Amino acid sequence: MAQRHPDMALAEVEERAALPAGDVLAAYLREQATTFLRALTQSTQGEGDTDPDAPDAGHQLRRSARRIGSALHTYGSLTDPAWADPLRAELGWLSSTLAREHQYSGRLARLLTALHRLSAEEEMIEDEAAALVPAQTPGGGGPLAVGAARAGALLERQLSLARTRAHSAALQAMGSSRFHAVADAVAVLASEVPLAAAAGAPAGELLPALTGHAHARLAEAVGSLPLPRAGHPYNGDALRSSLAAELSAERQDAPWHRVRILLRLSRYAREVFPQADGEPESRPAALARVLEQHREAAEAAAAVTSAARTPRIAPATAYALGVLHADQRQEVEQARFAFVHLWQRTPVS
Amino acid sequence: MAQRHPDMALAEVEERAALPAGDVLAAYLREQATTFLRALTQSTQGEGDTDPDAPDAGHQLRRSARRIGSALHTYGSLTDPAWADPLRAELGWLSSTLAREHQYSGRLARLLTALHRLSAEEEMIEDEAAALVPAQTPGGGGPLAVGAARAGALLERQLSLARTRAHSAALQAMGSSRFHAVADAVAVLASEVPLAAAAGAPAGELLPALTGHAHARLAEAVGSLPLPRAGHPYNGDALRSSLAAELSAERQDAPWHRVRILLRLSRYAREVFPQADGEPESRPAALARVLEQHREAAEAAAAVTSAARTPRIAPATAYALGVLHADQRQEVEQARFAFVHLWQRTPVS
Repeated sequence: MAQRHPDMALAEVEERAALPAGDVLAAYLREQATTFLRALTQSTQGEGDTDPDAPDAGHQLRRSARRIGSALHTYGSLTDPAWADPLRAELGWLSSTLAREHQYSGRLARLLTALHRLSAEEEMIEDEAAALVPAQTPGGGGPLAVGAARAGALLERQLSLARTRAHSAALQAMGSSRFHAVADAVAVLASEVPLAAAAGAPAGELLPALTGHAHARLAEAVGSLPLPRAGHPYNGDALRSSLAAELSAERQDAPWHRVRILLRLSRYAREVFPQADGEPESRPAALARVLEQHREAAEAAAAVTSAARTPRIAPATAYALGVLHADQRQEVEQARFAFVHLWQRTPVS
Repeated sequence: MAQRHPDMALAEVEERAALPAGDVLAAYLREQATTFLRALTQSTQGEGDTDPDAPDAGHQLRRSARRIGSALHTYGSLTDPAWADPLRAELGWLSSTLAREHQYSGRLARLLTALHRLSAEEEMIEDEAAALVPAQTPGGGGPLAVGAARAGALLERQLSLARTRAHSAALQAMGSSRFHAVADAVAVLASEVPLAAAAGAPAGELLPALTGHAHARLAEAVGSLPLPRAGHPYNGDALRSSLAAELSAERQDAPWHRVRILLRLSRYAREVFPQADGEPESRPAALARVLEQHREAAEAAAAVTSAARTPRIAPATAYALGVLHADQRQEVEQARFAFVHLWQRTPVS
């Protein structure tokens, strides 16, 4: 539905605004519920395998679960709260359980890519034009390269194990009665949405206010971020305190993670009832990508610190992990920098 | 002399341009030689101590040695080459020998400051304005903080030893016949500069061409740097290949170090015969500072890698050294970024 918005004719916009708010919300929820159920069927049929990541069905499942939960959050006053609130919580449990395996593989791939970049031999090319893109060859067998290889093997072992566990947990979750109860509730949603009495007012009157509330909460959270500092390149903030107690990074990252959640709510709210408010369709998605990178880099950096705590590792391995940790915290800083400039629509030099 | 240039009246400029080029060069060399000899007297008298760093006399000594050598390089065609070339080489030996102790203390201070920043506990301040400057308290006793403390102790031990050795080497150098030969040559310079026959032409004809040649060599070297990449924030270039063979970083840094040397030649050439070419007096100095930071960060990062090779260090120490190494390579990247924007006179967002 969000995809249709740029082409949406003015007449169509006006027609939708005159509909009861509950009808507009219900149409969105039905669409998402249908996608959810289709993905569920796919993921349980797929060659007798219940791999939630199989043919993108797992991704669709999580995607629609997040959208339903988000709509129930933003437009909660239009539905029966006794029904909406518990469903929202269960959808949250579901999508985070299903996402975990995917996150571990992503984290491992990110860290191995970074290690490769850090340990690839750089060939200086005399030709000036070609020198802009330094050619790289795999690192030799020096002590530093050995440390990098060992660090990679250690991370691969630890994150593969975590991924396998997450896979089992997802399979177990999808076979549980808790999961079946969520699926049943979504199936109800696909046919009939339990609306509150207030939902009878015209969409054009009710929905923009609720959407605006989601945007305002986001703007407020962004306003409390240290934007001027984060918008200044090489401020060093994300790496600061990397060698202090581990909670330090978590505390520093928390306001950014909160903005990521609020941005998601604001983005999905826009899908329910698109408005011609001059916001280009691409910007919220770009902001979301940057905050997703922020989260991934922060979690990857934490996984590296945790790997460095493995008993009896060689100093060369620990050194490589230290470099890798700092590299990922640097990407945290870079994501914040990109966010600030996207948010303020200022070009990055 | 350089300091006088912005206020220099047009009449004075024209008067100097009409003088023989050799006279202008000789005046500059005499001024620097006098400073050198004064600093030498100070540093050998200073409370019976020959510490070259004592009351800034060591700094003055190096400063004028560099300027004399630089002028002899750029305006070499105006002097007797059989006399200028060996003196230039000896002045280079002298200033680098005397600089080493100072460099080791600077490197240690830089690394301990960075470690402090990396291991200071960050206090999140709820107040929004205050949050822009995160308050820091010394890190607690967690394993990361212990690693940072040990890394600091290791670096302190190694760099203090290196500094002590450099101090002894400087003292020994200043007592050597080699040093006395340089001092004698500079004393000659203070009274009479051996000029070539060509030096009789007017300064306004000869000197701008030679100065321009120094500027052109600098511009050419800058042109061969990967400016577009380095001017893009968070390009990751300086950290790339940090875990490959150690030569990697040196090879990557070399063109920037070369620009630092050529910038110095260009800067000092400007002092000999200031010209109203629209270059603000402050920019070459700012560029030089940035490239000095580039060199200091690169050398500090190398010292950290070298410390990580110490046998039998704890993994926590090695991890902290890895983080610190990456931090310093980040400052290398930051210095390059600042250089590009200063050079191209583009504002940093």
